[in-house]
Amino acid sequence: MSTSASSVSVAPTFLSTANWLTRYQAVREQSVALCRPLLAEDTVVQPTLDVSPPKWHLAHMSWFFETFLLREYLPGYTVFHPEYAYLFNSYYNSLGSRVNRADRGTISRPPLADVYAYRAHVDAHMAQLLALADTLPAAFAELFELGLQHEQQHQELLATDIKYILSTSPLAPAYLPAPTDRATSASAPAATWLPVNGGMNRVGYEGTGFCFDNELPVHDTYVADFELQNRLVTNAEYLEFIQAGGYQDFRYWLGEGWDLVQREGWHAPLYWVEKDGQWLRFTHHGLQPLNLAAPVTQISFYEADAYAQWAGYRLPTEQEWEIAARQFQPNPAAGTFLESGLFDPQPLPADADPTQCHQLLGDAWEWTYSPYHPYPGYQRAAGALGEYNGKFMVNQLVLRGGSCATPESHIRPTYRNFFHADKRWQFTGIRLAR
Amino acid sequence: MSTSASSVSVAPTFLSTANWLTRYQAVREQSVALCRPLLAEDTVVQPTLDVSPPKWHLAHMSWFFETFLLREYLPGYTVFHPEYAYLFNSYYNSLGSRVNRADRGTISRPPLADVYAYRAHVDAHMAQLLALADTLPAAFAELFELGLQHEQQHQELLATDIKYILSTSPLAPAYLPAPTDRATSASAPAATWLPVNGGMNRVGYEGTGFCFDNELPVHDTYVADFELQNRLVTNAEYLEFIQAGGYQDFRYWLGEGWDLVQREGWHAPLYWVEKDGQWLRFTHHGLQPLNLAAPVTQISFYEADAYAQWAGYRLPTEQEWEIAARQFQPNPAAGTFLESGLFDPQPLPADADPTQCHQLLGDAWEWTYSPYHPYPGYQRAAGALGEYNGKFMVNQLVLRGGSCATPESHIRPTYRNFFHADKRWQFTGIRLAR
Amino acid sequence: MSTSASSVSVAPTFLSTANWLTRYQAVREQSVALCRPLLAEDTVVQPTLDVSPPKWHLAHMSWFFETFLLREYLPGYTVFHPEYAYLFNSYYNSLGSRVNRADRGTISRPPLADVYAYRAHVDAHMAQLLALADTLPAAFAELFELGLQHEQQHQELLATDIKYILSTSPLAPAYLPAPTDRATSASAPAATWLPVNGGMNRVGYEGTGFCFDNELPVHDTYVADFELQNRLVTNAEYLEFIQAGGYQDFRYWLGEGWDLVQREGWHAPLYWVEKDGQWLRFTHHGLQPLNLAAPVTQISFYEADAYAQWAGYRLPTEQEWEIAARQFQPNPAAGTFLESGLFDPQPLPADADPTQCHQLLGDAWEWTYSPYHPYPGYQRAAGALGEYNGKFMVNQLVLRGGSCATPESHIRPTYRNFFHADKRWQFTGIRLAR
Amino acid sequence: MSTSASSVSVAPTFLSTANWLTRYQAVREQSVALCRPLLAEDTVVQPTLDVSPPKWHLAHMSWFFETFLLREYLPGYTVFHPEYAYLFNSYYNSLGSRVNRADRGTISRPPLADVYAYRAHVDAHMAQLLALADTLPAAFAELFELGLQHEQQHQELLATDIKYILSTSPLAPAYLPAPTDRATSASAPAATWLPVNGGMNRVGYEGTGFCFDNELPVHDTYVADFELQNRLVTNAEYLEFIQAGGYQDFRYWLGEGWDLVQREGWHAPLYWVEKDGQWLRFTHHGLQPLNLAAPVTQISFYEADAYAQWAGYRLPTEQEWEIAARQFQPNPAAGTFLESGLFDPQPLPADADPTQCHQLLGDAWEWTYSPYHPYPGYQRAAGALGEYNGKFMVNQLVLRGGSCATPESHIRPTYRNFFHADKRWQFTGIRLAR
Repeated sequence: MSTSASSVSVAPTFLSTANWLTRYQAVREQSVALCRPLLAEDTVVQPTLDVSPPKWHLAHMSWFFETFLLREYLPGYTVFHPEYAYLFNSYYNSLGSRVNRADRGTISRPPLADVYAYRAHVDAHMAQLLALADTLPAAFAELFELGLQHEQQHQELLATDIKYILSTSPLAPAYLPAPTDRATSASAPAATWLPVNGGMNRVGYEGTGFCFDNELPVHDTYVADFELQNRLVTNAEYLEFIQAGGYQDFRYWLGEGWDLVQREGWHAPLYWVEKDGQWLRFTHHGLQPLNLAAPVTQISFYEADAYAQWAGYRLPTEQEWEIAARQFQPNPAAGTFLESGLFDPQPLPADADPTQCHQLLGDAWEWTYSPYHPYPGYQRAAGALGEYNGKFMVNQLVLRGGSCATPESHIRPTYRNFFHADKRWQFTGIRLAR
Repeated sequence: MSTSASSVSVAPTFLSTANWLTRYQAVREQSVALCRPLLAEDTVVQPTLDVSPPKWHLAHMSWFFETFLLREYLPGYTVFHPEYAYLFNSYYNSLGSRVNRADRGTISRPPLADVYAYRAHVDAHMAQLLALADTLPAAFAELFELGLQHEQQHQELLATDIKYILSTSPLAPAYLPAPTDRATSASAPAATWLPVNGGMNRVGYEGTGFCFDNELPVHDTYVADFELQNRLVTNAEYLEFIQAGGYQDFRYWLGEGWDLVQREGWHAPLYWVEKDGQWLRFTHHGLQPLNLAAPVTQISFYEADAYAQWAGYRLPTEQEWEIAARQFQPNPAAGTFLESGLFDPQPLPADADPTQCHQLLGDAWEWTYSPYHPYPGYQRAAGALGEYNGKFMVNQLVLRGGSCATPESHIRPTYRNFFHADKRWQFTGIRLAR
Repeated sequence: MSTSASSVSVAPTFLSTANWLTRYQAVREQSVALCRPLLAEDTVVQPTLDVSPPKWHLAHMSWFFETFLLREYLPGYTVFHPEYAYLFNSYYNSLGSRVNRADRGTISRPPLADVYAYRAHVDAHMAQLLALADTLPAAFAELFELGLQHEQQHQELLATDIKYILSTSPLAPAYLPAPTDRATSASAPAATWLPVNGGMNRVGYEGTGFCFDNELPVHDTYVADFELQNRLVTNAEYLEFIQAGGYQDFRYWLGEGWDLVQREGWHAPLYWVEKDGQWLRFTHHGLQPLNLAAPVTQISFYEADAYAQWAGYRLPTEQEWEIAARQFQPNPAAGTFLESGLFDPQPLPADADPTQCHQLLGDAWEWTYSPYHPYPGYQRAAGALGEYNGKFMVNQLVLRGGSCATPESHIRPTYRNFFHADKRWQFTGIRLAR
Repeated sequence: MSTSASSVSVAPTFLSTANWLTRYQAVREQSVALCRPLLAEDTVVQPTLDVSPPKWHLAHMSWFFETFLLREYLPGYTVFHPEYAYLFNSYYNSLGSRVNRADRGTISRPPLADVYAYRAHVDAHMAQLLALADTLPAAFAELFELGLQHEQQHQELLATDIKYILSTSPLAPAYLPAPTDRATSASAPAATWLPVNGGMNRVGYEGTGFCFDNELPVHDTYVADFELQNRLVTNAEYLEFIQAGGYQDFRYWLGEGWDLVQREGWHAPLYWVEKDGQWLRFTHHGLQPLNLAAPVTQISFYEADAYAQWAGYRLPTEQEWEIAARQFQPNPAAGTFLESGLFDPQPLPADADPTQCHQLLGDAWEWTYSPYHPYPGYQRAAGALGEYNGKFMVNQLVLRGGSCATPESHIRPTYRNFFHADKRWQFTGIRLAR
């Protein structure tokens, strides 16, 4: 998933047409639910290039179903509005010209109400189409699944973009009221080092469900034995780095990271605010005291790597991460996902088992020191969907494990997310290796 | 008036406290009325640096009354919200830091509803304050008048900014439904040349009402005799310039204008669209056929000057314009102003008297070839209001006469509006001199 | 004169063909003499957009004679090199495409030696052509004179560009050794205010010699009586402004000037350096102690105006300046010009007559608060030379009087130089009015 | 090697002090020889950010010896000039502030003559120091070797930067006269596919000579079997891609590459010029007809990858490349290196053995689809030299094999060069894999 998101499903033999409509409606409702606490005004602005207006997301997700499914498979379907293809295409050159990305937040029309009407129009026609499911070709099933996965990717973006949008106002508005019983200063249990067996291992998705094309082909890889920390790095630990002058010492930084830190005046993670000697953090619940026990998040790759250098360790590669995940068999139920409504990674309980590997799935995407490059033998799909993943495979780093903004059903250990090294508005975090 | 508006009133002996509240309420209501056709989403975006979000205008106008009148003169007044001074200060360094101008459209909160609450709060307290009018010092009367004039300046900006905002959508939404009976292609009567006596003349405001400090001091000036056209240049005439290749021939252009034309790919006035060989124009009523008989408008100084060069004539100076206005005694009632709700300069009737000078007030601001510099003996006021006009007196050109977006009670022949030579989102037009 | 230089001579009845060759050779030699102290490497760099490489100047001046005289009037003339028209055209759209101005310093070939060969080629053919002078039309004489004036304008630019080029090295190299007997700290005599009679006055060039088209037509103008200081503002006086916090107080500044000061971190004139509590200044003789008695120079219009505001006075208009010059009849011999080889305005002697107006010609260009606009009735010339002056007539301010880098024979009281308000690499200074 | 060059030698047990001075002098002389055909003016300009002025290279290489060897090991050594550390430090934060990279071409002083004097000064003191070689610690030997390798890296940059500098002039000057007997249109033998055994392999430098720290640690890696083409892609083959519309079809391009192609208007490799329907190419010998049989070179990673996509193949990874090189045991003597003075990759002879792998070393750097990341277990060195390589390990791609501008003694199969994907002024080329 990414600003620019991801790709082609493969062999979805897992799909049974029985529950298609139910599943479609559940996924679609989740997008609307995320926008419900917003005002119309919040849905139209774009305070920075990476962030898209929520209204745009809502329309774009519908455009995806309209373009790839309704126009292809529903006989006699008429598009909701002829200009919407121009307005809500994200990055598909195959599908013609579109609004410049930087201008998404300068256009107030169509109004939010029309975009909801667009969603309703698409939903009604999708219901018609899904009623014909048994007569549709296998390719349809793949595209249908892809449409749902795509919607889920944009749900994560909605959660992070909404946070960014609200953060730009000096009023520090809350997206939702803060839970009243949140403890904020307890410390996390000390991290432990867990040994991982390297050697020859398979990497890539081997299941029978959905995966993106970038998780394939499955292939063998070799890594040496290594150790991984059993939890994410916490705010308390990261604060030590800050207090030790980490942002002022070039020796810990990659050159391009150091230039960025100087140019932008970075001195803490995104959303951290120092006020009267106390650290606060902007959250979906407004400005809150920094939770020292919680994992540090919303940092760039440069910061993650500089922290690791300072600590004397390193970030894992994506192969190491996937091998470890296979070995430790993480329990998805233990992670924090979008469905929790918490919108922040959660502290590890004080009594967590120190011999287990925690927080692998959910909570925070883990920066790896691996490029987002094609797996050996990777082939881009033909047509517009060939643009879904393949064209982004340079100059980005892989992140693994999903975050507190990822829908739980969307993630798996082989999932490859990718961002540029300077991005930090996603729920990104650090796990150390050595 | 300007992107950055204008200044200090002088000697308002004309003010009688009797109708202060009535007048205040009428002016304030006009601002709200302008925003009524908008959706909340339209009020928050800023598609280009010059344009401010309507919500910002609505709040800023209230901030002006709060800052300069309520906080100064109403005992015990508490500001509506402590952050609003940061959010809604336009350009007063005297009053501290503020939101970067380029970021006005990236901030969605406070919501529009709160801004209307802010207006109501200010209005209620202004009513209290105006009830004490007879006890207030003369300085208050001046500031009160300035607040009203300031609000009117922002009404003009609202009208032009709203148009720009709606224009950026490919849906070409109408602000208001188009009048059904509008004739569009009739031609205007041929222009005539009217002689104007030069010699020694007084320039500057000599009345007993309100004027801005930049209209003073009254001083003597000398110009030679000259001739002025009796009406504004029309779309039909400007189209000839286009069709003669005016935008492709550097000889007609000032150097900086030519560079701009090349860089931006300008080939017609703002809002002109050629579709299937026909010229349309985006208006407050959506896309409409170009009205050939109407005055050309929404052009830069560079275009006005290039047109004049091509036609073999020139633009007047502001002194010439004011002397002519004094001589021709224009009837304000004949012009098109904001109150008309037409939002476009209107064609001169076919039977207009060719010996009279038309369209001097209202319709379109007339670019002069005069710098916006201080009049001899001009002094900036002390304090924050010294920033109202004086600090803009370089690198801008003077425009005269008001436009179809100017409130009728706001304009007078001595009024000096000013914009940079490249600006063209205001209702600006051309009157030729020789 | 300007970065972009100036225009068409009119009616040079003063020209006698007798001494044409002598004069041509003298002017041309002066350009070469200015470059003699340079290394080849100094002649090729362009440290900022406004500055052109000296090699470019040397070639461009020759290109002017080649293009406008030799190609037009010398039968059978062949250009020195077919690519030179592309390389050394400055800004004439009429004459085709050319090297982007910003790229003049990125091109090392042709070498300096070839440019000198180009000069020799042009000089030899000009000698041939001038031998035919009596047979040439009047238009030739005008162009010939213009070529010489053009060369002199570039001599001033050479002097200021060379200084800028040398200044960028931390080695602070001297263009020439410093005079050994220069006194630096004596104070100038106190400034006095001299009354000037206003009223109706003629403005523009009325002599029989050469002038640029922008000094015409002669016309009547009216100004009120005023007073002018009898000398330029000194470094000592300007230092008081700095020490009083002038660069930190927005109240003295035009808005665009204040933004610039903030953005660029200006805190003193160009070339001033504070070292160990002492003010030094980079000069044509390397770093030197600041000469407190000398006129302040190399400041922008914004700084000149802010100084005047702080001092409680103002800058004169160009009309006032010219009327004063006509009244005071300055003695050119008293000024400091290029020929002096001093490359800095000189202090007024302690015994200078306080009832006389000093330093009107030479020493430093005096910023006026007048726009560089056409005089009433001004017409651009036809053809390429129409681009010499007219197309620059917007967004620039007029400067008067010449400087220590102006050839003495090049200046006169009606001469209108022009620069943008932010430029400060020329020898610009301040004279106060009230 | 790179714009930003590379790192710390390890265990140079191979060094015998006997021939140190001879070797030092030979390497140093090579740098001077490269600059000999230049004019002083050519040595000072910087036409684009990546290119450094030759004078800067000459000084910087000396600064390296002065800073890391003379100042550390020669008792009583005094630096040549105290400002040179500021002027000629490239990117070592450890060593203080320095000239902004973008400004290297705006500074004309010190003159070239002084830089040669600097070289002589350093050389004389290095001779003194090398005479003491037997008394110096092992660390000295490592730094000495690093200094020589560093100088060789800058020799390659000199060759490519000089080409770029001369290319910006429309005169298309030749660095050296063209060889008279160069055949240009013969075709290369058809490429063949050579199988390479994958499996577990060691990667990294295992010899006893010098290597950079980024070639270590030696480690095991696994790759599947694959095939490699036996020669580089030729200009003729690349021309087919162009003629097939490769630069107009987004499907072959990575997204960021496609944006770049659009923005820059790329339609052929750097230095290709189409004139009257014929392809020419700017070379060290001026403009020459395109040699169809020669390897394509001076292309970006984006172009290399797009070509491979179009051809239906792919680029190798750096591991594959190194494994292939180990298997094929390339003969360095067969490649084209800096010493040849040819400054272009050479065509494969028509009778080249189709079962052999050609052009692995020399001719053109081969873009791999591998990130420039640390090898497993890599540690940055302490101190300033820790900045040599490690801090560049993100957002760059690895290139292998050296080029026609690489000194022959500088290259080896494990050598990792690295550049950003958009760079194309180096001698970069394409070898296909599948």
